Amino acid sequence: MNIDELVLVSVDDHVVEPPDMFERHLAPRHRDKAPRIVQNKRGEDMWQYEGQLRPNVGLNAVAGRPPEEYGYEPTGYDQMRRGCFDVHERIRDMNVNGVLASMCFGSFPSFCGKLWATAKDKDTALIMLRAYNDWHIDEWCAAYPGRFIPLAQVPLWDIGLMADEVRRVAAKGCHAVTLPENVTCVDLPSIHDEAWDPFWKACCDTSTVICIHIGSAGSPAPPSLDAPVETIMAGVPINCFHASVDLVFSRALRRFPDLRIALSEGGIGWIPYFLDRIDYLYERHHAWTHQDFGKERPSDVFRRHFLTCFIDDPTGIKLRDAIGVERISWECDYPHSDSTWPNAPERLMESLAAVSDDDIDAITHRNAMRFFQLDAFSKMGGRDRCTVGALRAQAADVDLTLLRGKGGKAPTGGTPRTVTAGDVMKQLATALDGQTKTKSS
Amino acid sequence: MNIDELVLVSVDDHVVEPPDMFERHLAPRHRDKAPRIVQNKRGEDMWQYEGQLRPNVGLNAVAGRPPEEYGYEPTGYDQMRRGCFDVHERIRDMNVNGVLASMCFGSFPSFCGKLWATAKDKDTALIMLRAYNDWHIDEWCAAYPGRFIPLAQVPLWDIGLMADEVRRVAAKGCHAVTLPENVTCVDLPSIHDEAWDPFWKACCDTSTVICIHIGSAGSPAPPSLDAPVETIMAGVPINCFHASVDLVFSRALRRFPDLRIALSEGGIGWIPYFLDRIDYLYERHHAWTHQDFGKERPSDVFRRHFLTCFIDDPTGIKLRDAIGVERISWECDYPHSDSTWPNAPERLMESLAAVSDDDIDAITHRNAMRFFQLDAFSKMGGRDRCTVGALRAQAADVDLTLLRGKGGKAPTGGTPRTVTAGDVMKQLATALDGQTKTKSS
Repeated sequence: MNIDELVLVSVDDHVVEPPDMFERHLAPRHRDKAPRIVQNKRGEDMWQYEGQLRPNVGLNAVAGRPPEEYGYEPTGYDQMRRGCFDVHERIRDMNVNGVLASMCFGSFPSFCGKLWATAKDKDTALIMLRAYNDWHIDEWCAAYPGRFIPLAQVPLWDIGLMADEVRRVAAKGCHAVTLPENVTCVDLPSIHDEAWDPFWKACCDTSTVICIHIGSAGSPAPPSLDAPVETIMAGVPINCFHASVDLVFSRALRRFPDLRIALSEGGIGWIPYFLDRIDYLYERHHAWTHQDFGKERPSDVFRRHFLTCFIDDPTGIKLRDAIGVERISWECDYPHSDSTWPNAPERLMESLAAVSDDDIDAITHRNAMRFFQLDAFSKMGGRDRCTVGALRAQAADVDLTLLRGKGGKAPTGGTPRTVTAGDVMKQLATALDGQTKTKSS
Repeated sequence: MNIDELVLVSVDDHVVEPPDMFERHLAPRHRDKAPRIVQNKRGEDMWQYEGQLRPNVGLNAVAGRPPEEYGYEPTGYDQMRRGCFDVHERIRDMNVNGVLASMCFGSFPSFCGKLWATAKDKDTALIMLRAYNDWHIDEWCAAYPGRFIPLAQVPLWDIGLMADEVRRVAAKGCHAVTLPENVTCVDLPSIHDEAWDPFWKACCDTSTVICIHIGSAGSPAPPSLDAPVETIMAGVPINCFHASVDLVFSRALRRFPDLRIALSEGGIGWIPYFLDRIDYLYERHHAWTHQDFGKERPSDVFRRHFLTCFIDDPTGIKLRDAIGVERISWECDYPHSDSTWPNAPERLMESLAAVSDDDIDAITHRNAMRFFQLDAFSKMGGRDRCTVGALRAQAADVDLTLLRGKGGKAPTGGTPRTVTAGDVMKQLATALDGQTKTKSS
């Protein structure tokens, strides 16, 4: 297979929500309570909800910037590619990167919608969350049939309401919802509590996949504030390791054999070690921990329930049989800084050189389409119209000029010191600081 | 190579300190301040120092128990094999398992001696720590030349004193010291602080290896108290992932190219993914984080400075070339519950079936001997006297009868529920509870 023949479905990208997103999905009486874009005194755009600010509207939406200007920015819509928040431009950015379809996690309410769970007025928060999902499903995803995998947020303060929202969005074709890596981060009972059963049941009844995005429950604490920022960036995917142990050894997966979990941005190269480790633990310790998997091993449970994904992961591709070729998918992570956009096909092909065409198809799109019930080929008029080559042919006019000077920190002369974990944490705190003014006032 | 021809050097085992350990290593005027064994009202043995109790004298020293009686015990010397704390019996337990040589981490002061850093009277703590090291080097290890790799604890409250202790123990042949995964856990400056330079320099000057044992900085917090205890056990080795990023991107390794680090009980199967990940991060982000590895990649730095080890790690063995065959060693973890004692050779050989004899020798002993300057062959009278077969031939009379009913919790009828993280944490808290009486009173 050559690069032009690849078909790419990305199970993890991000949407930066546009300022007008709530306008068409709320009754007039609720509109004044909706989150709105405001500017602080430095002219930075931020979402405001219940009087609270959410810094970092772009949340690392740096696609198209030169790498020396990356950072945990941008702080304004005018600092990012329109494809971050404009669906028509997003499709063009997908085309130029040869990506057929995309699942888009949110930005300002957090990847999994934690914002709504921290609201004081939960009745209103539920209305806003539903409007958010309606915008995502009926406006963003529906604009281009076959090009998006819809993903809903759920009200993370009431498991019954969560189950209701699963059923509500499933009825209009959305079969994926997102949870944090650790649900106790939003003061819910742990996943080991039977209180979760109505939610698990709703997911099984509607064939809804639970997507767990890295960093949803918060970033891992760096070893120290003066540690290199790489300590945060390197360690986040491995959070999935801990979340996966918790799930594999839970009663939930054994009580609900149809539950399906997607580990979003978790990487894959660590999984064979992880499977060795949980099987070894089970073998050595089940007699006193009283875990009972019957005739199975913990690794069998993982392989039945989980879908994994990667951006660039040569070790994981080499170990695909140990992971299970049918459990691997690919992601682009547009527009975040780990994304290989707009050269994703070329980068991916480096890892796939020694892989059979059938395995390539499984990994690049077939597994994702099966797991998330995406029928893109028929909607697009056949596979031939879905390949990297076919999509790129429609994107010859997409402007790939680098966004120089649009944000980030230029080196300030002298030898710049290395960026620490504390620098990035301070950057976020600074963004919150200072008086804000409402953009419309 | 067959099993009897293997030569096994274990770079991670544990000693349970015997009650009389301080007697021969303190001047008489200091003896009444030394840690001592006391019993609580349930008759459990504990170390007491500065009036504080250290629960769990055995710290999971369950070797020889049936698996249904494992747990975070035992709580008394009479509940464990004598080989845990008696060096002569230890050698017999090593022989019966075919293990030539062993590095032994401590138990009651924590693996890395955190106890001394929490002492109120630091002058006395330094005297006790030195007595501890003297006992370890001059009594425990010296009893059987060639059979132990000495390992010293350092005073984790004063970097200058730490450097002094490195030089003091090196002068009597100890070329390994232990640090926690994150030194800020003992209120030291982070490893990125230049204050560490005297310690790094002392290690380089004396060819002393820094051993970082998993769990030294504390166990990872479980996802929830009702999470399965497996969430703690599975996740601890992966702590090394975070500690390794911190070190690889530190200035310390670039300023001190002779520094050598051993990741103790970290496992190895995750390392190829880790190396992919840090190289990818560097490639994508160095332009804004200002990290500069010159012509090298972060993975090159890791491979030059680190020694890794594993207990049972089939994926890691398959990936040995991606890790670097010269950077892998083996450990037994006697007497803890993850150990495969007394069948370590048989279990290890399952992973080594497809490995060349030269790679087997590198992994099972040659790398460890080189890294830690262990000259066991000449001390033992040649390799032929160091093999699994030769050692086991001396151990025909070692009693391997299981220690039934010596501790642990027998199921109490009905269907036992699974053991949670909270159960184990409560078990530790309970051990601390209650009045104590001095054994000798």
